Amino acid sequence: MKTTLNRRYRFSASHRLHSAKFSDAENWKIYGKCNSPYGHGHNYVMEVTVSGPVDGETGMVVNLVDLDGYVQREILEGFDSVYLNEDVAEFKEVVPTTENLCKELFRRMTKFSLAKVERVRVEETSLNSFECDAS
Amino acid sequence: MKTTLNRRYRFSASHRLHSAKFSDAENWKIYGKCNSPYGHGHNYVMEVTVSGPVDGETGMVVNLVDLDGYVQREILEGFDSVYLNEDVAEFKEVVPTTENLCKELFRRMTKFSLAKVERVRVEETSLNSFECDAS
Amino acid sequence: MKTTLNRRYRFSASHRLHSAKFSDAENWKIYGKCNSPYGHGHNYVMEVTVSGPVDGETGMVVNLVDLDGYVQREILEGFDSVYLNEDVAEFKEVVPTTENLCKELFRRMTKFSLAKVERVRVEETSLNSFECDAS
Amino acid sequence: MKTTLNRRYRFSASHRLHSAKFSDAENWKIYGKCNSPYGHGHNYVMEVTVSGPVDGETGMVVNLVDLDGYVQREILEGFDSVYLNEDVAEFKEVVPTTENLCKELFRRMTKFSLAKVERVRVEETSLNSFECDAS
Amino acid sequence: MKTTLNRRYRFSASHRLHSAKFSDAENWKIYGKCNSPYGHGHNYVMEVTVSGPVDGETGMVVNLVDLDGYVQREILEGFDSVYLNEDVAEFKEVVPTTENLCKELFRRMTKFSLAKVERVRVEETSLNSFECDAS
Amino acid sequence: MKTTLNRRYRFSASHRLHSAKFSDAENWKIYGKCNSPYGHGHNYVMEVTVSGPVDGETGMVVNLVDLDGYVQREILEGFDSVYLNEDVAEFKEVVPTTENLCKELFRRMTKFSLAKVERVRVEETSLNSFECDAS
Repeated sequence: MKTTLNRRYRFSASHRLHSAKFSDAENWKIYGKCNSPYGHGHNYVMEVTVSGPVDGETGMVVNLVDLDGYVQREILEGFDSVYLNEDVAEFKEVVPTTENLCKELFRRMTKFSLAKVERVRVEETSLNSFECDAS
Repeated sequence: MKTTLNRRYRFSASHRLHSAKFSDAENWKIYGKCNSPYGHGHNYVMEVTVSGPVDGETGMVVNLVDLDGYVQREILEGFDSVYLNEDVAEFKEVVPTTENLCKELFRRMTKFSLAKVERVRVEETSLNSFECDAS
Repeated sequence: MKTTLNRRYRFSASHRLHSAKFSDAENWKIYGKCNSPYGHGHNYVMEVTVSGPVDGETGMVVNLVDLDGYVQREILEGFDSVYLNEDVAEFKEVVPTTENLCKELFRRMTKFSLAKVERVRVEETSLNSFECDAS
Repeated sequence: MKTTLNRRYRFSASHRLHSAKFSDAENWKIYGKCNSPYGHGHNYVMEVTVSGPVDGETGMVVNLVDLDGYVQREILEGFDSVYLNEDVAEFKEVVPTTENLCKELFRRMTKFSLAKVERVRVEETSLNSFECDAS
Repeated sequence: MKTTLNRRYRFSASHRLHSAKFSDAENWKIYGKCNSPYGHGHNYVMEVTVSGPVDGETGMVVNLVDLDGYVQREILEGFDSVYLNEDVAEFKEVVPTTENLCKELFRRMTKFSLAKVERVRVEETSLNSFECDAS
Repeated sequence: MKTTLNRRYRFSASHRLHSAKFSDAENWKIYGKCNSPYGHGHNYVMEVTVSGPVDGETGMVVNLVDLDGYVQREILEGFDSVYLNEDVAEFKEVVPTTENLCKELFRRMTKFSLAKVERVRVEETSLNSFECDAS
């Protein structure tokens, strides 16, 4: 029997979908209104899935205090209330689509050492979400 | 690292659970009020999961404009605001349970050529959902 | 200080928006796909708001067992898993828009005698709702 | 009996809370991280409440095609996928708090002529919302 | 034009519905399983509605930092992760129905001095909520 | 093609996180406010995932009447409106974290004989959930 824990975190950020590899016309064709010059934003939800044995004494996969502390330091401080294109170094040259955002969040989460990070899911709107896993 | 995209679509339709293979009494026993003669309906949600490499230039698994266009043409035009038993050819002889609805929607989605369709999920009510995948 | 209680009930039904007062072309122009000949359906939510003094001994505005029993008998038995146009007498000649559905549900709820029925709210989809009150 | 219709619309936008009337230190003290220099964003929901008599022939307070068309033209085209501070003229000099956003949306909605606009509600996050009405 | 702000807070607590004024049989008859001897619990949501003029300089009805601080001190510290019957003085002798809980939360909120507290809404489950206002 | 059905059930219960293996100080350090002496509670959601062939005649993986009956008898009667630590035998000596609750619910569900139980998911709050599967 395998046990996993899913924990959700919320952050608000803005982004502009625009790539220097494309002309202005191409950018508009590919990204539509998401290419709007000053960007726009979302209430993102990041759901982290971790797994591991349930500790026989504490009854936990991981103490949420530890997981929350890690996410606060390594993710939320840098991603909440920011403009991804300017405020997050990784997106200076990489277009901050939610696919790329999900990959970056997953990369950061996999360094968490107290349980196995199985998956990161990012919800961009109520109709859209993205997932990265190690498979 | 594998990246998937989940996209949700909504449509409203009605159905009657009734099979010509059963007597009226058997139909009532199996389907209960869902066998009511004139049918009833739901706000269905179809969530499509697609996967594929994240394009290095666009930063996308698939452009949502392409996915939305396909779903609009191949699914929503035929399934939104209809009575499944009468208006969808596949359900003239197959009982439109949500299991069978999910299978039909998955069959149609697997013909989408721009990314791999991993799964189709259909929510019938806030308490019920069904999934078809290729495994 | 005024205290109110809101209670939500769910039912699934189908309807067709079509009025004998209009030509077929007018019906289509007014109702669009909702005029589709065999109808379509929704997961409706009815939220009932009742008010009254909080009983000093029980601590309740009304016992939910009583409210639920009334709604089950007077509303859900007749409206769940039905086709409104055929199965509800009031909609044989009145077009079952959600406005008219809300008015009919409010009319029935106002006969509840154990607390004051302030309002009935009907949610047709996650984007649409309607309310009737006595003001 | 009064009947009202609530209709929800979604748009994604970004904003920066910063007022030229305050020093940088004051702006930071008042707005915290929402004063972040390049802004951040939200998935806003605008819920419009309109009322009026239910038309005896159509069974409607207002045809949603008309309401949706008005909102698309007068609101969503200018507010979806934009940076409120730069892309909406009213917020060049007025700080785009959600209070002020709600007031501006209400002002625009009150010019809708086919039903009485009772209220505009703006949800900024799942924990925060704001309402303007004419009372 | 009137502007209001709604803010939601979450807390988890348990309660037992039992009144010393009733016999055991009466308690069971009135409260059913909610009279279970060791109690049970809920994820409560408290939504506070405050109103007031939108400050011409800050663009706010009230600074959420102030409202959140007040609620944290005056409500959440005493109501989150507790057993209402034992841990909240007011419910030593008053049965902690959600009606009475809502009244107590409203009483505490009305002492907030930075904006007018219009209403307190308490959601007990996804199907049940209660509201107290000053009318 | 594999078809699965997800069905959600709700129950309200309370628990206290406290282990006799730890000192009082250790319990407080590990569990924080969840160690509060009289416990606290949640609106739990249990989502059961079952799979199997879609019956060619009924169009169903399993008749929901059968699944609901099993869950009512084997789960909800014992877990709804109770204090897990006192009212559920398994938690007399095992700390009722939601990990352990999920394991116990999965163990009970795997005895359901009419379809394969793939997974049990327990939502403790809107931000937290846990899953057990047989992999």
